[in-house]
Amino acid sequence: MSTPPPLPAYLTYQFMHVTSPCPYLAHLQLNRPEKLNAFSRPMWLEFGRVFRQLSLDEDVRAVVVSGAGGRAFTAGLDVVSAREEGPMSGDDGGGDPARRAKGWRGHIEEFQGCISEMERCEKPVICVLHAISLGLAIDIACCADIRLAAQNTRFAVKEVDIGLAADIGTLARLPKIVGSTSWVKDVCLSARDFTAQEALQVGFVSAVHDDKDKAVEAALEMATRIAEKSPVAVQGTKELLNYGRENSTAASLRYTSVWNSVALQAGDMPAAMMGVFSKKKPTFEKL
Amino acid sequence: MSTPPPLPAYLTYQFMHVTSPCPYLAHLQLNRPEKLNAFSRPMWLEFGRVFRQLSLDEDVRAVVVSGAGGRAFTAGLDVVSAREEGPMSGDDGGGDPARRAKGWRGHIEEFQGCISEMERCEKPVICVLHAISLGLAIDIACCADIRLAAQNTRFAVKEVDIGLAADIGTLARLPKIVGSTSWVKDVCLSARDFTAQEALQVGFVSAVHDDKDKAVEAALEMATRIAEKSPVAVQGTKELLNYGRENSTAASLRYTSVWNSVALQAGDMPAAMMGVFSKKKPTFEKL
Amino acid sequence: MSTPPPLPAYLTYQFMHVTSPCPYLAHLQLNRPEKLNAFSRPMWLEFGRVFRQLSLDEDVRAVVVSGAGGRAFTAGLDVVSAREEGPMSGDDGGGDPARRAKGWRGHIEEFQGCISEMERCEKPVICVLHAISLGLAIDIACCADIRLAAQNTRFAVKEVDIGLAADIGTLARLPKIVGSTSWVKDVCLSARDFTAQEALQVGFVSAVHDDKDKAVEAALEMATRIAEKSPVAVQGTKELLNYGRENSTAASLRYTSVWNSVALQAGDMPAAMMGVFSKKKPTFEKL
Amino acid sequence: MSTPPPLPAYLTYQFMHVTSPCPYLAHLQLNRPEKLNAFSRPMWLEFGRVFRQLSLDEDVRAVVVSGAGGRAFTAGLDVVSAREEGPMSGDDGGGDPARRAKGWRGHIEEFQGCISEMERCEKPVICVLHAISLGLAIDIACCADIRLAAQNTRFAVKEVDIGLAADIGTLARLPKIVGSTSWVKDVCLSARDFTAQEALQVGFVSAVHDDKDKAVEAALEMATRIAEKSPVAVQGTKELLNYGRENSTAASLRYTSVWNSVALQAGDMPAAMMGVFSKKKPTFEKL
Amino acid sequence: MSTPPPLPAYLTYQFMHVTSPCPYLAHLQLNRPEKLNAFSRPMWLEFGRVFRQLSLDEDVRAVVVSGAGGRAFTAGLDVVSAREEGPMSGDDGGGDPARRAKGWRGHIEEFQGCISEMERCEKPVICVLHAISLGLAIDIACCADIRLAAQNTRFAVKEVDIGLAADIGTLARLPKIVGSTSWVKDVCLSARDFTAQEALQVGFVSAVHDDKDKAVEAALEMATRIAEKSPVAVQGTKELLNYGRENSTAASLRYTSVWNSVALQAGDMPAAMMGVFSKKKPTFEKL
Amino acid sequence: MSTPPPLPAYLTYQFMHVTSPCPYLAHLQLNRPEKLNAFSRPMWLEFGRVFRQLSLDEDVRAVVVSGAGGRAFTAGLDVVSAREEGPMSGDDGGGDPARRAKGWRGHIEEFQGCISEMERCEKPVICVLHAISLGLAIDIACCADIRLAAQNTRFAVKEVDIGLAADIGTLARLPKIVGSTSWVKDVCLSARDFTAQEALQVGFVSAVHDDKDKAVEAALEMATRIAEKSPVAVQGTKELLNYGRENSTAASLRYTSVWNSVALQAGDMPAAMMGVFSKKKPTFEKL
Repeated sequence: MSTPPPLPAYLTYQFMHVTSPCPYLAHLQLNRPEKLNAFSRPMWLEFGRVFRQLSLDEDVRAVVVSGAGGRAFTAGLDVVSAREEGPMSGDDGGGDPARRAKGWRGHIEEFQGCISEMERCEKPVICVLHAISLGLAIDIACCADIRLAAQNTRFAVKEVDIGLAADIGTLARLPKIVGSTSWVKDVCLSARDFTAQEALQVGFVSAVHDDKDKAVEAALEMATRIAEKSPVAVQGTKELLNYGRENSTAASLRYTSVWNSVALQAGDMPAAMMGVFSKKKPTFEKL
Repeated sequence: MSTPPPLPAYLTYQFMHVTSPCPYLAHLQLNRPEKLNAFSRPMWLEFGRVFRQLSLDEDVRAVVVSGAGGRAFTAGLDVVSAREEGPMSGDDGGGDPARRAKGWRGHIEEFQGCISEMERCEKPVICVLHAISLGLAIDIACCADIRLAAQNTRFAVKEVDIGLAADIGTLARLPKIVGSTSWVKDVCLSARDFTAQEALQVGFVSAVHDDKDKAVEAALEMATRIAEKSPVAVQGTKELLNYGRENSTAASLRYTSVWNSVALQAGDMPAAMMGVFSKKKPTFEKL
Repeated sequence: MSTPPPLPAYLTYQFMHVTSPCPYLAHLQLNRPEKLNAFSRPMWLEFGRVFRQLSLDEDVRAVVVSGAGGRAFTAGLDVVSAREEGPMSGDDGGGDPARRAKGWRGHIEEFQGCISEMERCEKPVICVLHAISLGLAIDIACCADIRLAAQNTRFAVKEVDIGLAADIGTLARLPKIVGSTSWVKDVCLSARDFTAQEALQVGFVSAVHDDKDKAVEAALEMATRIAEKSPVAVQGTKELLNYGRENSTAASLRYTSVWNSVALQAGDMPAAMMGVFSKKKPTFEKL
Repeated sequence: MSTPPPLPAYLTYQFMHVTSPCPYLAHLQLNRPEKLNAFSRPMWLEFGRVFRQLSLDEDVRAVVVSGAGGRAFTAGLDVVSAREEGPMSGDDGGGDPARRAKGWRGHIEEFQGCISEMERCEKPVICVLHAISLGLAIDIACCADIRLAAQNTRFAVKEVDIGLAADIGTLARLPKIVGSTSWVKDVCLSARDFTAQEALQVGFVSAVHDDKDKAVEAALEMATRIAEKSPVAVQGTKELLNYGRENSTAASLRYTSVWNSVALQAGDMPAAMMGVFSKKKPTFEKL
Repeated sequence: MSTPPPLPAYLTYQFMHVTSPCPYLAHLQLNRPEKLNAFSRPMWLEFGRVFRQLSLDEDVRAVVVSGAGGRAFTAGLDVVSAREEGPMSGDDGGGDPARRAKGWRGHIEEFQGCISEMERCEKPVICVLHAISLGLAIDIACCADIRLAAQNTRFAVKEVDIGLAADIGTLARLPKIVGSTSWVKDVCLSARDFTAQEALQVGFVSAVHDDKDKAVEAALEMATRIAEKSPVAVQGTKELLNYGRENSTAASLRYTSVWNSVALQAGDMPAAMMGVFSKKKPTFEKL
Repeated sequence: MSTPPPLPAYLTYQFMHVTSPCPYLAHLQLNRPEKLNAFSRPMWLEFGRVFRQLSLDEDVRAVVVSGAGGRAFTAGLDVVSAREEGPMSGDDGGGDPARRAKGWRGHIEEFQGCISEMERCEKPVICVLHAISLGLAIDIACCADIRLAAQNTRFAVKEVDIGLAADIGTLARLPKIVGSTSWVKDVCLSARDFTAQEALQVGFVSAVHDDKDKAVEAALEMATRIAEKSPVAVQGTKELLNYGRENSTAASLRYTSVWNSVALQAGDMPAAMMGVFSKKKPTFEKL
């Protein structure tokens, strides 16, 4: 699979490589392969910005995320950079623990905020995990809608091994997106590696493919199918599933009825139905 | 398996066929086989009414739901009828999008309300999915307590394919009743078919049987076993599990203690214990 | 595997046998084997007290729980004792149903409170289920962080068979810790037995071992690995995962940033990183 | 003030007298003056029905509620009728406290449901309290949007004086609609009378008028002004204030943006702005 | 008003003086007048214990709280003692900020837990504030059901003046029990004194009396009236109002129906009604 | 009162005039007096930015907000600009109501987000309302911590008069910050003017001053007093009060203990206590 050229609209990014292998599709590659795609602060700031842009870009209807190169999706935090940026560098607001805490809080919230942009992106995001996928790799994967893995993926919620509790989202999201709490606590408390097969069995990923290329290809096909559908239907489905995960059934049904009271006034339902009856692929206005 | 005669108490329904294959058991069949049991508005209004009646009927301790005929549990919404009823027919409150939205909101809430009666029914409901089980089939199945499937079931959260986000409950409930969010989003965003085996593996159904008859038989046996137990214990268990799914552990423990503070004053615990010691099947007062 | 001697600090317990097979590790055995480790009121009061002590004991970094003897983890409530204690003995506050309800409420809340101390314990708890594991066994297991099982475990949410809805936590917690609601309702409404394999498949336990000894050994090894890690990281991870299970993602991310704003000021992160670079096992201050 | 004739659309009610003193306005009078407007079960069933009808009636944009006659808004529950209806008559599901509890629960929920229809009514409801306003009078008033009182109103949350905790809504709503919890608990725990002046001072009512006629007149004037405004704006404001009372600020802002994303597409904003600039009273389409 | 002798059941307390000025009534005086009733750790531990005992004591139906002596309700935390107890004494878990944080967390939670016992007490608690009422005085008052004040009360949420945010409950509860958030933030951020009149006007207290004796007398009269009523009704009313303050209206109505489904089976409603008809004061069984 | 010169750090704003009348204090004036300080889109974008900057500026410990000139705090939305910006200009995403809804949603969320920055600002904000204070003026005031008013303030929740429900925060926040829901609904549904005295009586503002100058002076004095206190204590108090307003008491107590477990490690408590004993004004490190 040859990589298409970068999209002009996204040329300003240094660590994010965005291409469009086919219409309405964006493929974002974490692009710092010489460091195993490990994240420095400039990189996570870019990560947030690119997803804000993808969310607004009406030429994008689905996003696939993978890591550049064959060695890693991402090795997680770039520990060397981390020591020179933010509170770990001593730039933590100073004298006493309460003031340093404020520095840390600001730092963590900025970092969380950037990664969460992937979850807030209104278009479906399919994340392809492959090779080294440690620490922050899991935080990121938890923000995706659908997770696929290559057979060679080496997963770990690695944070306790460097002396901290994962704070960029894994501990907040993992108990909500995988059914077996016993497994979730096992991997988070032990920091042990787990395989793609294990990730599939517990439902963290929904498919495993032979290698990275096959997994990316499968993700692109899935994204293509989604991108061909009504964007009103697809984006509404993402919004309502996220709402349903976080709210009571009663609140969720209410929100759904308000949401759909206008979504159903789109031209998409008639167009889609016409497509069903005529067996022709419908086209939908941009969104 | 020969079908027992309809229950006199439920003779007034047109699209709901209710029989009692054994004491304390109701078997409800969606009964519009010539339309693949697809739902028109009169049919979902009946669906709500029958569950309100089953919930109150003290001769019913467990309910099994299946579709009449061999071709479908249900093909979902009857699109042809939908075009002549409610907002799609133009009867949507009129002139501007805000007024039409009110029409849609009322329509969706009525529809949601009817289907939710199955969840609100105080007796356990076992849903047998078989053959075509699309769209609304999933909304309905999500309201059941236990889901079984026949091997030949063709499942799909089909709504995005007709240009809308599923609004009768699937998106509100599915993230709470299946552990793998990656899978949930995959099937909801892609509208792809999935099989009974796949439904079993992710935990959407808890058993798969060779064909519809075997699945219904298994459901009736399960329901029979449940109906032989204390209705105070069984109905309390359903109530408390539903509460537990929607509320924090602390709130749930508190609610449980208040609920059981009177439930434990029933005659059922002594009767059940006597049954355990005497090895005779206990009988319980109606509820 | 020879059992180590009881820990002096825990010698005052009658039904709880606490040893330390290796540093920073506590192994708690439910110790009433002649009654299949069934719980009387004095026993659950002890259960609560021992977990309060373990939570505060800075020489303990992980806890393994199992049942003494080969016949049972626990057979659940000691029904004979139950008839002589609390409301079942007639000591239920007296005359009318409202007054008896107050007696029952107090009784249930005390019982819930004792079992919940296992969940509140700030150190990870690994629960090994084996042989007979009925009723209260499930309530207890639901409070653990990680659940392992021996091949011979006979599981059942048995309460409906004695005429009541499980009220010591199973119905509040099970829907949150196992992904398949259909399975959860099946086992809770039918009170049927299920095997270790089934428990593994639905994610209630995260591993099954050949027999009790092997399962305990595996639990101790897992606990040892956890106990070697930073206690700030491990205890924070437990706290944040529990918080994440009960709260919205947004609330959880916020709580995480506040929590870690001080946790990251520990000496553990530098020590752990030094360990990674030097390939020497780091040591951490007590917590 | 002479009373206008009853509205034809509401002629089927026995205890509810509905007139339209001016366009788009409904005046509902509790109409059982010979019993001080005390409520029997048929009366509260009617109360629910009339509000469902008012909510849907697009010729109604605001509702005023008062009691017929000069002696009472309502004296509350008709205790004599209560003894012959529902669980107090012995028709409570029978044998043991758990079964009777189910009877009571059904009875309370039906009663709560009927009174809550006033809160669910999508049009603003102004409640005029006057003379005897005890027990259920407070439950009802809590469901109104705006409360006015006549100088002679005798208020009391009377329930503890007849041996029960108020269960038709006062205890659920009063802490949310009056700022001083100390006052709320004082009047609910002591069942003491309080005056219109006291109700005004703590904010339970927002105005007091000299006598019932003046209060009703003021309510009708207020309702008239509201009925002249955009129904999209008014009904949205009611919905969003109710949502804001029950949900977090963040959730509420989100719901608001979804709600208004279609409400702002109505013709009402241009019409209203035109009215402002032209100083002519705008007219709005029905809703 | 002469003080009655201490109640035998409460003789073991050092800083809590409990008398019973009339049947079913307990009057608790904070009793360290030589220190302006300031709280040391032994004193708040006792405070928690006495409320647990009062909550269970079926001879107590209402509680009045005041401070011994004329100079203070309480001056708040005993700063001198605080320096010798808990984390401020250096006994804070040691070496690094994360470990000290655990010490502080445990300390704050123990302190919060003791004061919160007043809120958890199932009997209504009326708090009489008088003279010096600073810092912890407000935390305590927020846990009462009804607050009365003497004219000479000097109130202040004093904590920011000693360099901390109030953490024993004021900041958690004050926004929920006083309507004007602007006022709440004013007094909490400025730490300024406010008078009984101001407290009355914003609804923090519900009455002001000329001096401490008159205020205590009024509280005892109010408590006496409450104690004469059905304890099932009174304790249920307290429970349901507290629940209503913390939960949505829908959740609250549901909880109310479950609670009252057994409370209404007490003998109290018939006894109370008989009392109303016969104009004789009813008597109620203990609770 | 002569206005101090603008602060250099804030010179880039066009519609926001920021001065520092005394150390650690910022005075922000809405500065478009020729348009009665009405808001165009560039102005609300600036409003958000200035509060993000104030929140981070460690030389700012308290903020006062008022309107430039004597005629208005703000007249609300600049309707003329609104017609040329965002969805009202036709730039609303186009063709069908669902697509236009997305445009409106984005527009409303951006606007809400900018105004909410005032609430998120970690320093206390005192808002001085004066003269014309309509529509958006109330949305803004609801985000302040403390509200003061000049005697001549003309308040109105004006939105229904221009055909919409207020969507920039008033309807989400007002029910939480004023105790009397009856009053809240009266002013929101009727859009009527209310006076400073009325605002004071219901607790919307906590003081009224003779004219704008006096009110600003009072606000600056209040802010000065707050700015002299420990910033750890003050900012923690703001955070915990906001948390307390939005969360249950139990959640709030827990969050408080975690928050203060590090805040109490600041140097501020010892410094403040030293100040109390030495009667010298303490100084605190920046935050």
